Amino acid sequence: MTVFEMIIARKIPSHIVYEDDLIIAFLDISQATKGHTLVVPKKPYENIFDIPEDLLKHLIGVVKKLSPAIKNAFNATGINIVNNNGKDAGQTVFHYHFHIVPRYENDNFNIIFSNNANTLNEEEYKKRATLIKAALL
Amino acid sequence: MTVFEMIIARKIPSHIVYEDDLIIAFLDISQATKGHTLVVPKKPYENIFDIPEDLLKHLIGVVKKLSPAIKNAFNATGINIVNNNGKDAGQTVFHYHFHIVPRYENDNFNIIFSNNANTLNEEEYKKRATLIKAALL
Repeated sequence: MTVFEMIIARKIPSHIVYEDDLIIAFLDISQATKGHTLVVPKKPYENIFDIPEDLLKHLIGVVKKLSPAIKNAFNATGINIVNNNGKDAGQTVFHYHFHIVPRYENDNFNIIFSNNANTLNEEEYKKRATLIKAALL
Repeated sequence: MTVFEMIIARKIPSHIVYEDDLIIAFLDISQATKGHTLVVPKKPYENIFDIPEDLLKHLIGVVKKLSPAIKNAFNATGINIVNNNGKDAGQTVFHYHFHIVPRYENDNFNIIFSNNANTLNEEEYKKRATLIKAALL
């Protein structure tokens, strides 16, 4: 049983900000930034591969509803929406969830996108796109 | 006109991996990791606050469809799903989009979640949750 299942079952306390039949949202205990919130399906799917499409669509609707509320509550100047799937992607609780991370000028949350464009030629881009399209079939 | 509108209008080239009436997905030119893909509504909404809910739900369905294909195409060991809203959140193209970032052991993509739990008391958590709930009303 993950910590999220214990929160959903009220076996451990949390600070819930939204709840419906399928979804619960509560403050991330780490508060990476002020107002950092997790949006979690009540059923314990592990990742984006196994959560049903309908439930994911409902979940993203809740993320959309919460995002302006969180931004306004703290006068944030931006919002990151983040979902980590797998240990190598930084997933630490293996129960599907989206992070809503409100952002502020000079806060200490960071996503580092490196730019590898200068190391790649047209052939390599074509190869990568072809591999994805083949995997979609 | 943003670079995404130029890509959608075929005014500049890109490596498209998926397209339907409402959504287009193509390789991020930066390739932060191998297979890094953007999923973009064709209409130029700026952020999660102004994209219509139905279109966002369709978009996340496309993200769910593409994620296992991208993971399998490159034998990735994880996937980050990321949406940046606002300059302070790292948004650089002001046309709504989700990043799909396949992950690999010891790659050079990173999301830094700092843990501030030891600086916060119960009162402060309660205050934050109350502010969000009030902003939802």
